[in-house]
Amino acid sequence: MGWFVEYYNGCGLKIKVIDKIVEHRGIQRIEIYQTESFGKMLVIDGKIQLTEFDEAFYHEMLVHVPMLSHPNPKNVLIIGGGDGGAAREVLKHNPDRVVIVEIDEKVIELCKNYLKIDGNALSDERVEIVIFDGKEFLKKAKDFDVIIVDSTDPSPVSMSLFDEEFFSLAKDRCDVFCCQSQSPTIQLNYFKEILKNSKVFENRRIYISYVPTYPLGLWSFLIAGELSLNFKKINRRYRKRKIKTIYYNPEIHISAFNLPNWLKEVVDDVLNERRGRNA
Amino acid sequence: MGWFVEYYNGCGLKIKVIDKIVEHRGIQRIEIYQTESFGKMLVIDGKIQLTEFDEAFYHEMLVHVPMLSHPNPKNVLIIGGGDGGAAREVLKHNPDRVVIVEIDEKVIELCKNYLKIDGNALSDERVEIVIFDGKEFLKKAKDFDVIIVDSTDPSPVSMSLFDEEFFSLAKDRCDVFCCQSQSPTIQLNYFKEILKNSKVFENRRIYISYVPTYPLGLWSFLIAGELSLNFKKINRRYRKRKIKTIYYNPEIHISAFNLPNWLKEVVDDVLNERRGRNA
Repeated sequence: MGWFVEYYNGCGLKIKVIDKIVEHRGIQRIEIYQTESFGKMLVIDGKIQLTEFDEAFYHEMLVHVPMLSHPNPKNVLIIGGGDGGAAREVLKHNPDRVVIVEIDEKVIELCKNYLKIDGNALSDERVEIVIFDGKEFLKKAKDFDVIIVDSTDPSPVSMSLFDEEFFSLAKDRCDVFCCQSQSPTIQLNYFKEILKNSKVFENRRIYISYVPTYPLGLWSFLIAGELSLNFKKINRRYRKRKIKTIYYNPEIHISAFNLPNWLKEVVDDVLNERRGRNA
Repeated sequence: MGWFVEYYNGCGLKIKVIDKIVEHRGIQRIEIYQTESFGKMLVIDGKIQLTEFDEAFYHEMLVHVPMLSHPNPKNVLIIGGGDGGAAREVLKHNPDRVVIVEIDEKVIELCKNYLKIDGNALSDERVEIVIFDGKEFLKKAKDFDVIIVDSTDPSPVSMSLFDEEFFSLAKDRCDVFCCQSQSPTIQLNYFKEILKNSKVFENRRIYISYVPTYPLGLWSFLIAGELSLNFKKINRRYRKRKIKTIYYNPEIHISAFNLPNWLKEVVDDVLNERRGRNA
């Protein structure tokens, strides 16, 4: 049927699509396509959320880095993530309870019926789905071992997940926190804003990974809390929990924190600016 | 003036272009564009070779990994690389002599006059430019400390740089060998072929890096010879030679050899197939 194009700043990714499987216009515009080379593809408000080809690259790095940074994550909150991919990965750690707080129930419904990348996580009895605003949920929530934010790009629907108040609430309610933090190459303003707004976490760290169908292919994550970056410890947990992965491994986990010089400078500038202001 | 598009398999990268600075149709079709967001861009036979925005990501990883794997690289051969970016990085190691063997003299001429990313390396007195076929040159060449192959995608002009004979000649003429080995996500056949054809190097290793304007953003390199992968040694050499970089650092150097699981499997399959055949 032609080409889907997602435009960034002065560039764009074209994906050949065979068929539009479903479309819904509600609080967000949700589309699921069949593509020629990437399997099924979920698009929200014109932005590629995932393809079957590389969703594991993203979900595994979003989930296993924080989950393996925690010694025993039994009680996990996912904010966003209505496609069920993050929950699927969390369940590999054998938690007692996973809460998904998704603001748009249509994402859950369409992904469950048409996308089916959740590996039945969205029907698992340990998984509780709450249709609610993530920040409002946090205001009344009890503690979690790990909180993972699997949001869309900042938009009117998701922007409350990127401000100082949100990070402050999250900090008080978990041991380990992780969120996606956008493309540092082509969305540098978003990236810097997330880094600035999360200053309540004094030990926050950035890690990066490769997600081919995200803007220019390099993606970033912010992690904070009680972290271990000891390879032997991470590797022991990975083997003990018998995690099976397509992309992630403990070597990649540690490597992902090694940033190229230009990105280290960006991160240091934001962190130093903050120290300067507070001095 | 519109959009330049490079198509891969079922997808493509669009880049907004303001102006075509120069075009030449000879043994290859060479175009240099001014883009909106990526500075100047070199395109050969329809494929993006580099943009000012991210050429350092590629050239630094292509050059500093092999150069810092060698204790004292004074005599270096670059095959291809007519844009001068690789030579610019090699010169940071203070070699006595750099030979660039480029098959298409028009690449040198147009890059020197219009692209100007070589930092005057193409005019440096230590740099010798030979307009010749890379494989034919190797047949009569003396030894080099390091050989770096900065080729285009396999094409009628460059395909002699990817066959068994080429790797065999290269092995006999250097301590450390490195070549770009294409996109492992979207050009898996090329990647596997390079890995297979280089079997004369028993200790060959793959490393990966992020180059946003290359097909789907992940790029691979093959390195072989007398290698060190000891972080302290690499780091000491990096500091001693006072290398200044935008992307590369010794942590990234070591990390780049940590492959995601799916790619480790591809590499192991090719290597095991070979061992199976020879058993």
